Amino acid sequence: MILDKVNNPQDVKTLSIDEMSQLADEMRNFIVKKVNTVSGHCGPNLGIAEATIALHYVFNSPIDKIVFDVSHQCYPHKFLTGRKEGFINPANYHMYTGYTAPEESEHDFFKVGHTSTSVSLATGLAKARDLKGEKGNVIALIGDGSLSGGEALEGLDNAAVLGSNIIIIVNDNDMSIAPNEGGLYKNLKELRDSNGQAECNFFKSLGFDYLYIGEGNNVEKLIEGFKKVKDIDHPIVVHIVTEKGHGLKAATENKEMFHWIMPNTLDENNEIVVSSGTTGEDWNSITKDYISNKINEDKSVVVVNAATPGVFGFDKNYRAQLGKHYVDVGIAEEHAVAFSSGIAKGGAKPILNIMSSFIQRTYDQLSQDLSLNNSPVTLLIWWGGISGADATHLCTFDMAMMGNIPNLIYLAPTNKEEYLAMLDWSVNQTKYSTAIRVPTCGLNSTGVKDTTNYSNEINKFKMVKSGEKIAIIGLGNFYWLAENVAREIKAKLNIDATLINPRFITGIDKEMLDSLKKNHDVVITLEDGELNGGFGEKVASYLGNSDIKVLNYGANKEFTDRVPLDELYKRYRLTPSQIVEDTVKYLKVGV
Amino acid sequence: MILDKVNNPQDVKTLSIDEMSQLADEMRNFIVKKVNTVSGHCGPNLGIAEATIALHYVFNSPIDKIVFDVSHQCYPHKFLTGRKEGFINPANYHMYTGYTAPEESEHDFFKVGHTSTSVSLATGLAKARDLKGEKGNVIALIGDGSLSGGEALEGLDNAAVLGSNIIIIVNDNDMSIAPNEGGLYKNLKELRDSNGQAECNFFKSLGFDYLYIGEGNNVEKLIEGFKKVKDIDHPIVVHIVTEKGHGLKAATENKEMFHWIMPNTLDENNEIVVSSGTTGEDWNSITKDYISNKINEDKSVVVVNAATPGVFGFDKNYRAQLGKHYVDVGIAEEHAVAFSSGIAKGGAKPILNIMSSFIQRTYDQLSQDLSLNNSPVTLLIWWGGISGADATHLCTFDMAMMGNIPNLIYLAPTNKEEYLAMLDWSVNQTKYSTAIRVPTCGLNSTGVKDTTNYSNEINKFKMVKSGEKIAIIGLGNFYWLAENVAREIKAKLNIDATLINPRFITGIDKEMLDSLKKNHDVVITLEDGELNGGFGEKVASYLGNSDIKVLNYGANKEFTDRVPLDELYKRYRLTPSQIVEDTVKYLKVGV
Repeated sequence: MILDKVNNPQDVKTLSIDEMSQLADEMRNFIVKKVNTVSGHCGPNLGIAEATIALHYVFNSPIDKIVFDVSHQCYPHKFLTGRKEGFINPANYHMYTGYTAPEESEHDFFKVGHTSTSVSLATGLAKARDLKGEKGNVIALIGDGSLSGGEALEGLDNAAVLGSNIIIIVNDNDMSIAPNEGGLYKNLKELRDSNGQAECNFFKSLGFDYLYIGEGNNVEKLIEGFKKVKDIDHPIVVHIVTEKGHGLKAATENKEMFHWIMPNTLDENNEIVVSSGTTGEDWNSITKDYISNKINEDKSVVVVNAATPGVFGFDKNYRAQLGKHYVDVGIAEEHAVAFSSGIAKGGAKPILNIMSSFIQRTYDQLSQDLSLNNSPVTLLIWWGGISGADATHLCTFDMAMMGNIPNLIYLAPTNKEEYLAMLDWSVNQTKYSTAIRVPTCGLNSTGVKDTTNYSNEINKFKMVKSGEKIAIIGLGNFYWLAENVAREIKAKLNIDATLINPRFITGIDKEMLDSLKKNHDVVITLEDGELNGGFGEKVASYLGNSDIKVLNYGANKEFTDRVPLDELYKRYRLTPSQIVEDTVKYLKVGV
Repeated sequence: MILDKVNNPQDVKTLSIDEMSQLADEMRNFIVKKVNTVSGHCGPNLGIAEATIALHYVFNSPIDKIVFDVSHQCYPHKFLTGRKEGFINPANYHMYTGYTAPEESEHDFFKVGHTSTSVSLATGLAKARDLKGEKGNVIALIGDGSLSGGEALEGLDNAAVLGSNIIIIVNDNDMSIAPNEGGLYKNLKELRDSNGQAECNFFKSLGFDYLYIGEGNNVEKLIEGFKKVKDIDHPIVVHIVTEKGHGLKAATENKEMFHWIMPNTLDENNEIVVSSGTTGEDWNSITKDYISNKINEDKSVVVVNAATPGVFGFDKNYRAQLGKHYVDVGIAEEHAVAFSSGIAKGGAKPILNIMSSFIQRTYDQLSQDLSLNNSPVTLLIWWGGISGADATHLCTFDMAMMGNIPNLIYLAPTNKEEYLAMLDWSVNQTKYSTAIRVPTCGLNSTGVKDTTNYSNEINKFKMVKSGEKIAIIGLGNFYWLAENVAREIKAKLNIDATLINPRFITGIDKEMLDSLKKNHDVVITLEDGELNGGFGEKVASYLGNSDIKVLNYGANKEFTDRVPLDELYKRYRLTPSQIVEDTVKYLKVGV
C-alpha cells in the first residue's frame, strides 16, 4: 500500500505519478469505509484526492499555505499531513474533526466549517506575508458551490487587487451540496465547454489571471498546472474541473445524496442500501405537508432556502412538485433573507428555511432588510439547540443573535399542534417579521388543535399549570425539561410548581411575571441555547428589582467541539436533579 | 420654475427634454442649499438627478417599482414624488428622512440605509409579481460602490436567473464614499473605456443582458435607453455613467469630501469655506497618532477599513503616509473581518476600523472567521451608542450583537489613557480576538498613564470608589453618567455610592459582584446601547439568586428614527434624577 510510506507532505514528493494515482484510490477506499461507518462528507473528499496530492507534491506546506474553504474536502489533506490513522483504523475514526483544525496540525491554518471564507482568509495570510517581507505561496481551495456566498465574492474582488502572490483554486464539480444555483454557474459551464477559452470570464472580469485545468482528477495534469503557477507574483485563479464522488459509482450517480452520508448507506459491494421507505411523521414531513396544502389554497406562497434542502427534507420529488413555489438561491444566505423580504413586500408569502448555524450569516439582513421594514416573512430556523456538533456547526447562538433585533417575533413551539398553529398564523398575517424555531425533540402531539390567534397574544406566555413557590419557564425545546423538573420537584419537595410555556423568545410577559411575585420564591428559566444574550436574562433583568429569585439555565458562552450532549447538559446543570438541587437553596420556607 | 408644476411622477411625463434638464438643475440648487444648511448626502444626489427624471418619465411608479440602493441618492426621487417641500422650504428641511421611507410615499418600497441590498430586495419584488401573475417593471438602482458588498453580489448572481423582468441600473460614478477599491472596478473602467463593448464583462459573465449608457447626466440619452429596456422579459443590467457631484464644481473636484457634507461647507458663491485648520485633539487624532507611531516600531501593523475612512479621520494625506500599512477593502465588511483574521494568523497586526452600525454586517465572520480561531485582531468600533440618528444608521446594537460571541473580548474604555492602554495591549497581545468601543463622549483625560496589563485582568471590573448601599456600574460611554448619578445620590440621599468601571463588555467580574452583596441593597447598571442582550442583563442574571436588587438601564429594543437624544434619554430613564427616583424605592433602610 502506497499509504504505508506516506506520513507527511515530504513523502508525497518521492512518489511517481502512478503511485500518486494509486494513493488517491487508496485514500478514497478508506474514506468510503469511514463515512459509511461513522457518517461524514463523502463526495467532496472523493473528488479532491488527486488535487490534494498534486498540491502537496508541488507546494511546500506549511511554508506554502493552503486554506480549505468550508473544509468539507480536507480528508485527503489530513491523510497526507500525519493524520491517516484517523481514517485507516476504525478505532481512531473519532480522533480528528471533519474540518481543518490548527490544533491538529501545522498544515491547517484555520478552524473552518462555514462556506465562502477561504479567499478572504488567504488574502489576509498573503498580506501578512507581504508586510513581513516573507516568501511563500498562499493558496485558497474553494468549491464552486461556495463561490456564490457574498463573503467569497467580496474576497475575490479584493484578492484580485492584492498585487502579489495568491492562488485561488476553484474546484468546479458543478455541484454545491445540492445542484448549483445562480448566473455564475452558467459562466463556469461556458468555461468548461470552451476548455477555459470563453471570452467572457467571470474571474478575468474581476482582474484575475486565469488558468484552466480540465482534468482535475488527473494527478499529472494537475502537477503540470500547479507548477506553472507556483511562485507567481500576482493573483491567479486556477479553475480545475473535478468529479464529485470520483471513484465511487453510487456517489457519482447520486451527487446530492452523497455529499454527506449516514452510516450504512452502502452495502459491502458499495451499492446503495435501499431503505424501507416508510418513515413516520416528523418535523420535516409535517412542514412539507403544511406547505403543499397551503400552496394549493394560496398561489403566492413560496418556499426559499439557501443550498441545504436536505436539512428540511426537501428532496428532488418534493422540489419538483413545488415548481415555481420553490426557490433555492444557492449558498447566499444574505440574499435569501433580503429576497424573502422583497417577496413579502411585493404581497406574496415567503417561507424561508435555514439552519440555525447558517442564519448567523444574516444578522444585518434580519435587522435592516427584514425587521426594520416589518416584512411579513416566515423564517423557519432548523436544528437550533445545544448539540454535540463540531465547533463550526453549533446551533446554540440563534436565540441570542436574533432575539435582540427590534420588531422581529421569534417563536418557540413545544409540540406539533402549536408549531402548525404558529406556522399558519405567521404565513397568514401581514404585520410582523416572524421566525419559528422548529423543535429538535421528537415530534410530540397533544392531539388537540391549537386555535390561538397569536396576533392577540404577542409576548404573552402560556400558564400551563398554576402552582406555588417555584415557577418553571421552559422555552421551546426545553419545555419537556420543565415538565421533568416539575415532576422531580413534586417527588422530592412535594411542591406543585408553576409550569409556563413562554412561546415567545423575543419578549417577556410582564403581567404574568408580576403575578408570580405573590406566591413564588423562585423562577427557573430553561432555554436550549446560549444563556448570555438569551431569553432567561430578560426575565432576570425584569425581576431584578423584586424579591423573587431567578435562576437562568442554558448553555455557557463557549464554542464546544464534539462534546457529547449528556456531558454538556451536566456541565450546564441542565439535568432535573441538578436544577432541583440548586432551587432548594432559594426556597423561603425550608422543606 | 419647472418644479412649480411637478408634484408627482405623472407631471414629469408632460415635460420636454429641455424642461427636464432645467428641472434637474433646479433640484440640484435646492439640494445644495439644503445639505449646506442641515447636512446630508450631496454628491450622490447631484449626480442622479437626470436619471431619476428619466426613470419617472419612462416608467410608471408605483406600478413599476424602483428600489434605491442605500438610498443616498433618493433626494431627486423625493422631489418628484410629492415631497419637494422638504427641500424647497427651509422650515420643512426635517420633514422627511434622508432615505427612502414607505411611510412617506407609495413610491418608496423599503426603508434602506445600509448598502448593497437593492438587487436582492428588487428580485424579491419581481418574484412576488410573477407568483401573483402581475405585470410591471422592477428596477434596482445601485451605485458602483455598493456593488462590492457581498449581499449585492449574491443578489446579482441570483437575479440573473430570475427568468423574468428585472432591470438593474448600475450608477457608475467611479466612486464609492471614498475612491472605489477592488478588481471589479477595473472592469467597469474597461467597459467605460470601450463604450460598453469590452468582451470581458462582469455582468454578462453572471448571465445578464447588458446595455451601456455613457451619458448618464443626459436626460435624452437616458430616456432613449430606458425605453429600450422597459417591459423587457428577462434580467438586464443598464450601466449608466454619471458624474458624482454633477453641476457643483466644488463637489466634482472634491468627490470624497462632498459625498456627505456638514452645514456651512460652502459660502454664498458655492466655494468651499476654508476651515481654520487647527482642530484640537480628539478620538480620531489620538488613534491616528497611535497608529503612526506603532507602525514606526512594528512594520507588521496594518490598518484596515471598509470604505468609510472619513469616519475615522483617515484623510488622503494620512492614507498616503501609511502606504501599504493602509488597506481600504471597499464596501465589503465581511471580507474586512475575515481578511483581518487572516492577517493576524499570518503573524501581522491588523487594526480594523468600522462603524457600529456596519459591524452588524459581520456577525458570522466575527464568530467563525475571527473568534472561533482566536485571531488576534484589534477591532475599533466607532460611534457606538444611543443617538438621534436615522433608523437605518443606529449604533445601538453592537454590544448586544458582539457581546455574546464566545472568545471575543470587547472593551469599553472611559477616558483617553484607558483607551490608549487598551489599544496598545490589544495590538501587542497575540492570544485574543479583541474589539474596543471607541468612546463617543468628548475626549477626556486623567493625565495619568494607564499601565494596566489587561491580559491579567480579563473580565475584571475596576472599583473606582468603594461605597455602600448603592453600586453604580457605568460601562464605557456611560461612565460619566455613573459619576453624575453618584453625585446626585450623594446630594439627595447622602449616600456614598460605590462606583465601578467594568471595562469589559463581554464578561462579568463575579468576585466583585459577590463582594457587593454584603453592604449593598441595589446595583445599577448603565450602558449606552440596547439593554436586551447587553451587559446589564448579565449582571442581573448573575445576581438573580441574591437579595441584592439590580436595576438595568440602557436603550429599549426598538428602531428609533431621528428622535432627539435628550428625548431618548428621558424615555429610557437615563437621567440622573430619574435613576435616583427609581433607586430610592429599593433601599432597605429608608432615607
